[in-house]
Amino acid sequence: MSKRDMESEFSNAFPESCAMKGGEGPHSYAQNSTFQRSAIEAAKKLLQSAVTDHFDLKTTCGSPENQIRIADFGCSTGPNTFIAAQNIIEAVQLKYQSQSQNQSTPEFLVFFNDQASNDFNTLFQKLPPNRNYFAAGVPGSFYGRLFPSQSLHLVHSSSSLSWLSKMPKELTDRNCGAWNKGRIFYTNAPKEVEDAYKGQFKMDLATFLQARAQELVGNGIMILLIPAAHDVIDFSVDLYGGKDYEVLGSCLMDMAKLGLISEEKVDTFNVPTYFPRLKDLKKMLESNEDLSVEKMDLLDGNNLIIEPNLGRHVSQCRAAFEVLIEKHFGDGIVDELFDRFAQKLMKSPQLMMYPQKLKLVMLFVVLKRKV
Amino acid sequence: MSKRDMESEFSNAFPESCAMKGGEGPHSYAQNSTFQRSAIEAAKKLLQSAVTDHFDLKTTCGSPENQIRIADFGCSTGPNTFIAAQNIIEAVQLKYQSQSQNQSTPEFLVFFNDQASNDFNTLFQKLPPNRNYFAAGVPGSFYGRLFPSQSLHLVHSSSSLSWLSKMPKELTDRNCGAWNKGRIFYTNAPKEVEDAYKGQFKMDLATFLQARAQELVGNGIMILLIPAAHDVIDFSVDLYGGKDYEVLGSCLMDMAKLGLISEEKVDTFNVPTYFPRLKDLKKMLESNEDLSVEKMDLLDGNNLIIEPNLGRHVSQCRAAFEVLIEKHFGDGIVDELFDRFAQKLMKSPQLMMYPQKLKLVMLFVVLKRKV
Repeated sequence: MSKRDMESEFSNAFPESCAMKGGEGPHSYAQNSTFQRSAIEAAKKLLQSAVTDHFDLKTTCGSPENQIRIADFGCSTGPNTFIAAQNIIEAVQLKYQSQSQNQSTPEFLVFFNDQASNDFNTLFQKLPPNRNYFAAGVPGSFYGRLFPSQSLHLVHSSSSLSWLSKMPKELTDRNCGAWNKGRIFYTNAPKEVEDAYKGQFKMDLATFLQARAQELVGNGIMILLIPAAHDVIDFSVDLYGGKDYEVLGSCLMDMAKLGLISEEKVDTFNVPTYFPRLKDLKKMLESNEDLSVEKMDLLDGNNLIIEPNLGRHVSQCRAAFEVLIEKHFGDGIVDELFDRFAQKLMKSPQLMMYPQKLKLVMLFVVLKRKV
Repeated sequence: MSKRDMESEFSNAFPESCAMKGGEGPHSYAQNSTFQRSAIEAAKKLLQSAVTDHFDLKTTCGSPENQIRIADFGCSTGPNTFIAAQNIIEAVQLKYQSQSQNQSTPEFLVFFNDQASNDFNTLFQKLPPNRNYFAAGVPGSFYGRLFPSQSLHLVHSSSSLSWLSKMPKELTDRNCGAWNKGRIFYTNAPKEVEDAYKGQFKMDLATFLQARAQELVGNGIMILLIPAAHDVIDFSVDLYGGKDYEVLGSCLMDMAKLGLISEEKVDTFNVPTYFPRLKDLKKMLESNEDLSVEKMDLLDGNNLIIEPNLGRHVSQCRAAFEVLIEKHFGDGIVDELFDRFAQKLMKSPQLMMYPQKLKLVMLFVVLKRKV
C-alpha cells in the first residue's frame, strides 16, 4: 500500500464534536465511531513520544498541589475520549517513573469538553469505573474560553477542529458569489464557497488556539489531531471526504424536487465542517505567538479502519449528521433521507469505495505554551 | 411567629441530591424545589458573613494562578445550585474589592457535583448564559473522593447530606431487631431501626468530611446546610419531616394489601434519608481532626417557603421519590401511589399542615481546612 493510499484512508472522517447523536442506540455516535477510535489508537505512539519529548514535569512542580489537569476538547459521548485520556495518563506516568523517582506520582483530573447539547449523561454513565483519574464534564463551545487562565497542563483534541463554530452568512446570500445553491458542501462548488468556508475555519482555529494558550500553564502542551486535505488536491475535481456530503446533498435535492422538503431549506443548509489544505493548516498553527509548534507529523494510516460495510457506513454518516439535519429540516425526514443515501451508494458503490479518490490526511501536531 | 414555629417550617425538606427526577416536566426537581431555593436564599446573609469572616484571600495567593475553585455537592439539576454559586462568588468578590485593591479579581471555576445518574444534560443547558464563572460537572457520589488533593478553595452543600450512601442491611433482615417491617422510614419504628439509620449517617458524614478535607486547600472553607431534628424531639411520637414518609409508607402497604405490589417489596424498601439530632450532628461535625468548626448557626426560618398547596406539595414529594420508587418497585405504580398519597392528605390535611408537629431545623455550619 503506497503512502498516498494510506493517507487516502482518512477520507470518511466524521469529526467527534458538534451535537452527535447521543445515547447508545443503533444510530448513536457511541456505536458508530470505529474510525475515530482507530485514529486515536494509531496516534498512541506519537502521543507517547510527544509526552516523553515535550511534556515538562516541572510544569506541575511550581504549585503546591501535585496534580495534572488534562482536557479533551470535543469529547462526544465516549468511549474514544476515555481511550485518549488513558493513553495520555499512561505516557505521563511512564515519564514520571523513569525521571523523577523521588517525587510521588501526581493525581490526574481529566476534563471532558463538548457542546452543552452533547449527551453528557451517557458520557458520565460510561466513565470507566476503575479509572485512575478524577473526571469532570465541561459544557460549551471550545471556540471560546472554558477554563480559568493557567488551568491546564495538557490539552488534547482529536478530529474535532474540522467543525466550524458557525456558517458564513454569504453562503446563503443569493446576491453573493458564495451562494451555495443546490449544494450542502464546498466541493464541486464555486471558489467563493470554499473561500467562505476557509475564512471561517481560519478564524475559528485562531480563536481556539488563543483560548487554549490562555488556559495552558507555561510549558503546558497541546496535542491535536486535525483532518486536512492533501496539498495536491483539486477541490472541484477530487472528491475525498466531501463525497458523502455531496451524495447526501443530492438526496436532499431529490426530496426537494418531490416536494418533501422545500428547496430553500436545502439552499440554506451547509455542512459546517472544513478540511483545510495541509500547507495552509501548518501556517495557521504556526501563527499563534504564545504557542510554539514542537512537532508535526502525518498519522500513519496502516492501522486506521475504514468501514467497508455499506450499512455501517450509512449508520456512521447518520450518527454524524442526524441531529444537525433534524435541527434544520425538522423531524420526520431523517429515515427517508438515509434510506435514499443508502440506495444511492448501493447503486454506485464506487462513490464510497474508490480510495484513490480520497485524499484526506490526519495531521498530528504538538504545541507548547511559551513561558 | 415564635422561634419554635420558625424552625418547624423546615419540616418538608426534600434533599437536593440522590437521583431526583430530571428534565423540566411537571414532576421534575427543577419545577419542584421552591423550599430548597428559599433555604438557599435565607442562607445568603449567613453565607456572605462566612466568606467575609472566614475565607482567607491568601488561600489563592500561594499558587501562580489567580483562580478560585468552588464545588457544590449534591447540585441536582438547578436552578438552586446556580443561585448558591452566584451568592458565594458575589461574597468573594466583595471581599476582594474591599481588601485587596492591588490584586486583580480572581477567575472562578465552579464544579457542580451530583450522582452520575443525575440529569446533567438539563443542568448544563440551564447554566446562566451570562455567568461570571467557568463551569464543570462532576459525576459521582460525594461519599468518596471526587477531586485531587488540595483542589478546592470553597466547598458548598445544601440539604444534601441527609441522603445516605446506602441502607444498612439489618433493616431488611427479618432475624434482626432493626427489621423495618411494614414501614419505609424510622419514625414510629423500634429504636433499633433509628439506630441503624443513625449509624449509617454517622459513617457517611465522616466519609464526606474526610474526602473534602483532602480536597480542600489549606485554609479553604466548607459551608454546609444540613437538616436536623430538634433536640427535644421524641422520634416515636413527634412527626416532623417523617410524616410524608409515613403516609407514603401506609399508601404502599394499602397497595400491598390489594395485591398491587408485594408486601415483601414494601418491607425491603426504606427511604435513605436521615435527620440527625442537632446535638449529635454538632458532635459529628467537630470530630474531623483536619477541619475546624468556625461557625454554627440555625437558619432563620422567616423567609422559608413551605408549599401550602396540596397539589404542589404532592408534586414536590413525587419529584423527590419517583426515581427511587420506580427503581425498587418497577414501572407503573407511581401514578397510583401518588394519587393515593394525595387522597390521604386531602382527607386528613392535618397530617401535612400542623406546623407545631414539625420539628426540623436547618444547621448552617462553616468549617475550615487546617493548614
